[in-house]
Amino acid sequence: MQLTKFTDYGIRTLLTVAQAAPELISVSKVAEQNNISRNHLTKVANKLVSLGYLESVRGKYGGLRLGMPLTDIPLGHLVRQLEPDFNLVACMGDHQACTLLPTCGLPRVLQEATAAFLATLDHYTLASVAKQPDMILVQ
Amino acid sequence: MQLTKFTDYGIRTLLTVAQAAPELISVSKVAEQNNISRNHLTKVANKLVSLGYLESVRGKYGGLRLGMPLTDIPLGHLVRQLEPDFNLVACMGDHQACTLLPTCGLPRVLQEATAAFLATLDHYTLASVAKQPDMILVQ
Repeated sequence: MQLTKFTDYGIRTLLTVAQAAPELISVSKVAEQNNISRNHLTKVANKLVSLGYLESVRGKYGGLRLGMPLTDIPLGHLVRQLEPDFNLVACMGDHQACTLLPTCGLPRVLQEATAAFLATLDHYTLASVAKQPDMILVQ
Repeated sequence: MQLTKFTDYGIRTLLTVAQAAPELISVSKVAEQNNISRNHLTKVANKLVSLGYLESVRGKYGGLRLGMPLTDIPLGHLVRQLEPDFNLVACMGDHQACTLLPTCGLPRVLQEATAAFLATLDHYTLASVAKQPDMILVQ
């Protein structure tokens, strides 16, 4: 079972930007520190900017900084926004994929389990997973 | 977020075999009914046989049948056995993948959420997701 790389990179980007504060950090530097391709990380960073989690400052001394404190980012909410879907098995996204539907209760049970997964993540903010004190506060 | 295709196919194979009972059903037929490649399904069926969930009967009138009633297969237990791992993000499988470790609490939080996911699945057996009465009982 996996989250998408997009979500994985999204979380790591926010933590890396927080760690760099009060300095701004470039997309290239975040990519390099996390061993992720710059192209892939640009898409992730753009999404995080559009969601308000990051701010992008242009210019020679520009770069990324947090758009809100890590304490304001519930992990469950972030994961819901970054994951494209929670179709854990093929039939949940494409009802043609299974001949057992509509008599099969698997999708409903997996939805219930996913809700329990996300509810657990809702107990945590990004600040509470970033154990270094200087990663917790937005600068 | 997704389960692997291997787990997806494993669950569907067991439900399809149960649906065919009391008749035995061939791997080819299960593959065809679920629009899965026969090669892929053979690996899944072999794993299910090795775990005791399926029995393979050889010969002209052979095929697959359940190795135990669906009521004896807790969904959480099955998913734990079929999934290769629960490394939801890269750093959980490869500690070199992240420069934030060991100060990052993300792996622990994701493990807790995964435990909640599996605990929910443990409330159900395959029989309880197979709503058709004739899918519930092993023949």
